[in-house]
Amino acid sequence: MEAYLHDHIPVTRAMGVSVEAAGPESVVLSAPLEPNLNHRDTVFGGSASALAILSGWTLVHLRLRDEGLHPRIVIQRNEMEYLRPIEDRFTATCAAPEAEAWDRLLRALKGRGMGRIEVRAVLECDELEVGRFSGQYVSLEGESTS
Amino acid sequence: MEAYLHDHIPVTRAMGVSVEAAGPESVVLSAPLEPNLNHRDTVFGGSASALAILSGWTLVHLRLRDEGLHPRIVIQRNEMEYLRPIEDRFTATCAAPEAEAWDRLLRALKGRGMGRIEVRAVLECDELEVGRFSGQYVSLEGESTS
Repeated sequence: MEAYLHDHIPVTRAMGVSVEAAGPESVVLSAPLEPNLNHRDTVFGGSASALAILSGWTLVHLRLRDEGLHPRIVIQRNEMEYLRPIEDRFTATCAAPEAEAWDRLLRALKGRGMGRIEVRAVLECDELEVGRFSGQYVSLEGESTS
Repeated sequence: MEAYLHDHIPVTRAMGVSVEAAGPESVVLSAPLEPNLNHRDTVFGGSASALAILSGWTLVHLRLRDEGLHPRIVIQRNEMEYLRPIEDRFTATCAAPEAEAWDRLLRALKGRGMGRIEVRAVLECDELEVGRFSGQYVSLEGESTS
């Protein structure tokens, strides 16, 4: 997964994104401070946001792949809250959405070839919560992800 | 401004961020497609979001500097809508907020040493609107930006 991200999304290589864990139940990505610095020597909000967006996309991608589905997955909108400065390596953890929302996505994808899902991710640094993300992703059948 | 961003926020160099226009009334940043590609050969949502976040920060920074103020400016939260795939060089344009909101920020900064402002930015590519951003930034006196 990490090689895939670095090869296909070059900014993830510049950011030094690592995949700590990646499965249909949870995705944990991390990135070091240095390539993601801002002018205050903490993490640039754009990098924090990008890691969260990526964790959500990866979770939806892996969960759908686990169901034998390979639709195109596109982010439609997101919200990000920055709770405190990030001063070291940080992680974005995206957990599985509730079963009901997931089932609705699967039904919509199978029925109409298109569905939406909202996922949440938490950003952490040194065991503190430093940010919160929610993102809505659209899945479109008939166009493969790769 | 462009050299400042590249020197202090290394991700902006990796993204190839250019400053097209930067003043207290409007900030226009741009970035090319190639370093910001995703696995679909369009712009990665994280790059689109990062350019918008940066345009908002730059506008608030330049407007406050124009008033002789140099507070620390920190993003607190943001929303991003992705309206269509971005297939070429794209821009983020952040315009000045309404006078009333701006005056409120200045009064809060001068009175309490801290104030908030919400700014909006539009992402465009090939003269089409491709994304919409709104972000809330906090300004804190007593800590210089640089």
